[in-house]
Amino acid sequence: VTEVRTVAVVGLGLIGGSLARDLSARGISVLGYDRDPEAIRGALEEGVIASALGAGLEGLEEAEALILALPVERAAALLETALPRLGRARFVTDVGSTKRAIGDAAERLGLGERFVGSHPLCGDHRSGWSASRTALFQGARVYLCPTPASGEGALASVRALWSALGAHPEEIDPATHDQVLAWTSHLPQAASTALALALRGAGIAPGELGPGGRGMTRLAASSPALWTGIATENAGALVRAIAALEAELRALRTALSDGDEGAVGRLFTAARAWTGEG
Amino acid sequence: VTEVRTVAVVGLGLIGGSLARDLSARGISVLGYDRDPEAIRGALEEGVIASALGAGLEGLEEAEALILALPVERAAALLETALPRLGRARFVTDVGSTKRAIGDAAERLGLGERFVGSHPLCGDHRSGWSASRTALFQGARVYLCPTPASGEGALASVRALWSALGAHPEEIDPATHDQVLAWTSHLPQAASTALALALRGAGIAPGELGPGGRGMTRLAASSPALWTGIATENAGALVRAIAALEAELRALRTALSDGDEGAVGRLFTAARAWTGEG
Repeated sequence: VTEVRTVAVVGLGLIGGSLARDLSARGISVLGYDRDPEAIRGALEEGVIASALGAGLEGLEEAEALILALPVERAAALLETALPRLGRARFVTDVGSTKRAIGDAAERLGLGERFVGSHPLCGDHRSGWSASRTALFQGARVYLCPTPASGEGALASVRALWSALGAHPEEIDPATHDQVLAWTSHLPQAASTALALALRGAGIAPGELGPGGRGMTRLAASSPALWTGIATENAGALVRAIAALEAELRALRTALSDGDEGAVGRLFTAARAWTGEG
Repeated sequence: VTEVRTVAVVGLGLIGGSLARDLSARGISVLGYDRDPEAIRGALEEGVIASALGAGLEGLEEAEALILALPVERAAALLETALPRLGRARFVTDVGSTKRAIGDAAERLGLGERFVGSHPLCGDHRSGWSASRTALFQGARVYLCPTPASGEGALASVRALWSALGAHPEEIDPATHDQVLAWTSHLPQAASTALALALRGAGIAPGELGPGGRGMTRLAASSPALWTGIATENAGALVRAIAALEAELRALRTALSDGDEGAVGRLFTAARAWTGEG
């Protein structure tokens, strides 16, 4: 895959577990950790990780690279735990959906040169080791977020890692990433969650939905812990995006209340035109 | 399929075209009409319809049943055009996403006894003859909406028709149907449309979305003409549903603005619990 032969993956959920599967399949020795002992047991049994790190990341000293694959609000604390054991690590990356906070934490800890954040766009509503699978990153976009302190070597290594797994790395600075993702990922999640809550409030059961409604509420099943962390960390940008969605809903509602069929039609037409279909 | 041997299908789009395919595959002679000559030509060439009706529905006299498969705002007018030619028709149904207006129109025209509305829950964002396919109704729920005037014979025939195509008919009165569908179908469509408009306003291109965002904006590509009709016809109920969605978005936005992580977590958790996962 890359020039490294031993990689530590901390967090063996959908993303971390899938990374461990792909890396070990390419001959990399993966050292794994998850706070869920079942995930560790499963990964050892399937031969996906060569050995398990301790709860204090004992054993991390062997790793030539560290990948953090846990909820964003826990990643910074984990980085601090890892710090004294990163002597051999040539680069450190993460996979979180927000990139400013973890980049800041890495700089603060003096890891700036070796750290480059990553964000693969291939999650879905599933989570946990049982959801992990091979080739998850094949064809997926992966944002690479170097900080001003990131070294060229670390950036090249992280890029090579994702390319080797079939992903398409794309560089973007951490602040811009968080702004853009508020719209492209965090807002769609908020919309699905709010739709589920509205349906719940109306006494509608999921089984009453047709295919369209089921698709629109699928993300609402995403991990609440994961999304509480992401939404809270990116609250500023997400608040603006949610307000914009409310404004569009209000415009449609007003056109309907007014019986203004022309205005209703223009909204549906503009939305469809944006999708690039028709 | 049923006791009828000749069925007229007016509108050969996703739903009507798929109906025509399934009916002709079961040995029924299908008389078809669409205002798009290309759809008629395609249906004739593929042998899906035995012959085409005229623009004034000339030829409809032969049909033992009539199925209206066109946008809801055009169905009532079509019914009036069809009226003088329905001498042999034992039942008339439609496939629209709103059911009160068409049922009222059938009663007004004196067709009440032979009319039972239908609404198959299997549409998606695609439309037109080219989107039609066989077995579209296999396993799909189909709402049957008899009016107080509907005869038992017509209801039994319409039920048998859908059952023969593999669908699951479920009886519901037209007013209740429109109330429920405002939440289960029309609100998800409105949410997808509004999300697309919000992303458009932010200068986001569809290609920037990950899998989650793509799924959430898929319905926005639905036919504007079709949805303008549905939304306008069910405006009263849909306005209330949209307002409820706005309220849930506002609750999430407020919790984020306040930095109230507990409240944010409770919203994500309640939405996920409603989906029945986790």
